Amino acid sequence: MHSVNSSSVSFSALGRRAEPPTIARLMSMALEQKGLLSLAVGFTDNRTLPVRGVKATVEVLAGQGGEPEYLQYGTNQGRPGLRQLLAERLVMAEPELKANAVAESLMITNGSQQALYLAIQVLCDPGDIVLVDRPSYFVFLEMLTGLGVQARSIPVNAAGQIDGKALRQSLVEMEKNGETKRLKAVYFVSYFSNPSARSLAESEKNTVAQVLTERGLIIPVLEDAAYRDLYFRQPEAARSVLGLSAWEAFPKLYLSTLTKSFATGLKIGYGFCSDKAWLKKMLHVKGHHDFGTANFNQAIFEHVLAGGGFEAQLARIRPAYEAKMRCLHSVLKAEGLSALGWRWAEPTGGLYLWLEAPPALDTSMDSAFCHACIREGVLYVPGDLCFGDVAPKNFVRLSFGVLSESDLVEAGRRFVTVAKRFG
Amino acid sequence: MHSVNSSSVSFSALGRRAEPPTIARLMSMALEQKGLLSLAVGFTDNRTLPVRGVKATVEVLAGQGGEPEYLQYGTNQGRPGLRQLLAERLVMAEPELKANAVAESLMITNGSQQALYLAIQVLCDPGDIVLVDRPSYFVFLEMLTGLGVQARSIPVNAAGQIDGKALRQSLVEMEKNGETKRLKAVYFVSYFSNPSARSLAESEKNTVAQVLTERGLIIPVLEDAAYRDLYFRQPEAARSVLGLSAWEAFPKLYLSTLTKSFATGLKIGYGFCSDKAWLKKMLHVKGHHDFGTANFNQAIFEHVLAGGGFEAQLARIRPAYEAKMRCLHSVLKAEGLSALGWRWAEPTGGLYLWLEAPPALDTSMDSAFCHACIREGVLYVPGDLCFGDVAPKNFVRLSFGVLSESDLVEAGRRFVTVAKRFG
Repeated sequence: MHSVNSSSVSFSALGRRAEPPTIARLMSMALEQKGLLSLAVGFTDNRTLPVRGVKATVEVLAGQGGEPEYLQYGTNQGRPGLRQLLAERLVMAEPELKANAVAESLMITNGSQQALYLAIQVLCDPGDIVLVDRPSYFVFLEMLTGLGVQARSIPVNAAGQIDGKALRQSLVEMEKNGETKRLKAVYFVSYFSNPSARSLAESEKNTVAQVLTERGLIIPVLEDAAYRDLYFRQPEAARSVLGLSAWEAFPKLYLSTLTKSFATGLKIGYGFCSDKAWLKKMLHVKGHHDFGTANFNQAIFEHVLAGGGFEAQLARIRPAYEAKMRCLHSVLKAEGLSALGWRWAEPTGGLYLWLEAPPALDTSMDSAFCHACIREGVLYVPGDLCFGDVAPKNFVRLSFGVLSESDLVEAGRRFVTVAKRFG
Repeated sequence: MHSVNSSSVSFSALGRRAEPPTIARLMSMALEQKGLLSLAVGFTDNRTLPVRGVKATVEVLAGQGGEPEYLQYGTNQGRPGLRQLLAERLVMAEPELKANAVAESLMITNGSQQALYLAIQVLCDPGDIVLVDRPSYFVFLEMLTGLGVQARSIPVNAAGQIDGKALRQSLVEMEKNGETKRLKAVYFVSYFSNPSARSLAESEKNTVAQVLTERGLIIPVLEDAAYRDLYFRQPEAARSVLGLSAWEAFPKLYLSTLTKSFATGLKIGYGFCSDKAWLKKMLHVKGHHDFGTANFNQAIFEHVLAGGGFEAQLARIRPAYEAKMRCLHSVLKAEGLSALGWRWAEPTGGLYLWLEAPPALDTSMDSAFCHACIREGVLYVPGDLCFGDVAPKNFVRLSFGVLSESDLVEAGRRFVTVAKRFG
């Protein structure tokens, strides 16, 4: 009877702030262009998805005796068996932790994204400030904006490493402006980062802790380890904040995901929180969001982790992603992008190449360069989206996760073709 | 290295408001008591869960040619194919709607709970007011509290029907107090309600619309149809707000779930929103929550809906739930609960019996009656949790979804044993 109306709705402050993600604009620009090759989205490789593993797991679950509790509601915090397995896995990387204690303080979420959202919801009011790595995860940055929270970059040097002296200066300035009382958390993606593919050295993490401690700012830290398992050859040696004594006094939330490394369609992340009160608050709010992540998906992961299927899948995809990285990296080199003054490091894990264009070249969303790339049939994420503040416009994130090797070669060629035109 | 610290975290206003759900207290009281039979949780029946259907579906998905996109990220709004099937299903009940338009304005969520959360997040600031049915869904009421929003009951008469005159009076009073500008939405569970098992008649829904219209309050309406499919013999005849002309001018969000009627472990709900701007705001915020519900679970439902498996499962569980309802209803009758002055209606759908105890009997969580029931080995949901305001203490919600028929008989006997002691 009714058609869909135009709106007369009065929105909350949060509702008024909610804006379409900038990436959505990029995607809709892209949709108008057929045959476009996307190096933009951080999807994973369809060809290595664990089709047989998931099928076999569901068959095992269905064949178990007893009641099929895996199809029933689970608990708000997540399956105890899955939490225990995740805790044991975390303790392998951080041997100072105790698995049983970790399992108790771990929550299962709808991807690690929900854990990030819950953390910021319970910590920050509009107007508050969060320190972020530089560059940082752009979906997190947009989420902060949605919650009315400001991002402030942790300064880095020319090599992209955390600059303790500049951080101290920045915090002193914030003290002068009366802003430190609004500084509520610090966030970084520390392993094969999205977007930079860098890992933070222990010394860099320690520097952040030391400078914060020196300024009397014992604030919650969120370490996003979403890509920690996605190394190519060997794990990143740096311990997380959970194992570093410089961070001992800080409330810590360590986040990661099972799905980026297994099957993104299952959407299971988790957070381990060192602070019981903080964990409880997040769980109470999760009770309001959804009172528990899909128990079926958790049961699948519990089985896959217990039976070794998770490690087997990782062993399968690591060389596949390394080959894809090398493929894109090589074509950019071979086509002459470095000679045009572009710089990037060859990553040792993750899903991204992070390119720095010559300083004068604008690669942001509305730039001539970006439009030319789309016309040429290649899509990327403009790097300026990935900065919490003072965003340079000459960075580009390329994802090698999705495309086949032949498409990566073609996409790389198209990209360099445009770069030459602007070079 | 670190033990779990006691907290030094400073929380946001939302974080400070977040309190453990009262139901959690009840559950932990219950855990101390072995052999307890729970008529409290709204879980579904384990014995009729679609074990074979889910297994067969995953096998079909795994056997399809092409790339296994069902294990990959989906979109933020949800699978187009699933949205189309849900839209076609909704149009069967509400023939005035157009399926294609509905599919476009429908979003898939982590249970219908997330759709409720998103709706309130974008509509309400702390201090705002939402009109709710009486009694209402207690998880929704606790979520309102968590967001700092007040619930105000839509008045009902002695038979539990919406009382338009009293509603008008209540709105006039709100106008006098300057409260109507903070009135942001109206919410009701309109089919086989949790907790009352009642369905709202069209005339009751129309009364609400007419009184709101008369007071100039064209505010968003949230119709929660979570139990609409769970009728025992025949669907409830009342149309939803989507088809009632009295609601035409109102922005409408119609919510339901696939999992309550199929497998709660899969956690897929949905909302159809008549207002494009409101839908967009909710989707932007969902992008921050999780940028999309698990695609795998959506793919399973898409297959199950397309192949008739969903209707087959409903046909299987409807008589099972009716038998369980009758079982609990009968034992309460046979053991003499009515003779003690307790009243309840025999429902025609849903998962609950809603009992009214004699007015002087306190059945709330900390009451002697509630403690006596736990000692006797039977658990229920105190009805006072289910009122947005002015909560009477002599109501009880019993769920017949979980227990076997023999356990329902035993639980019912224990309940009446205690009632006799207090009678």
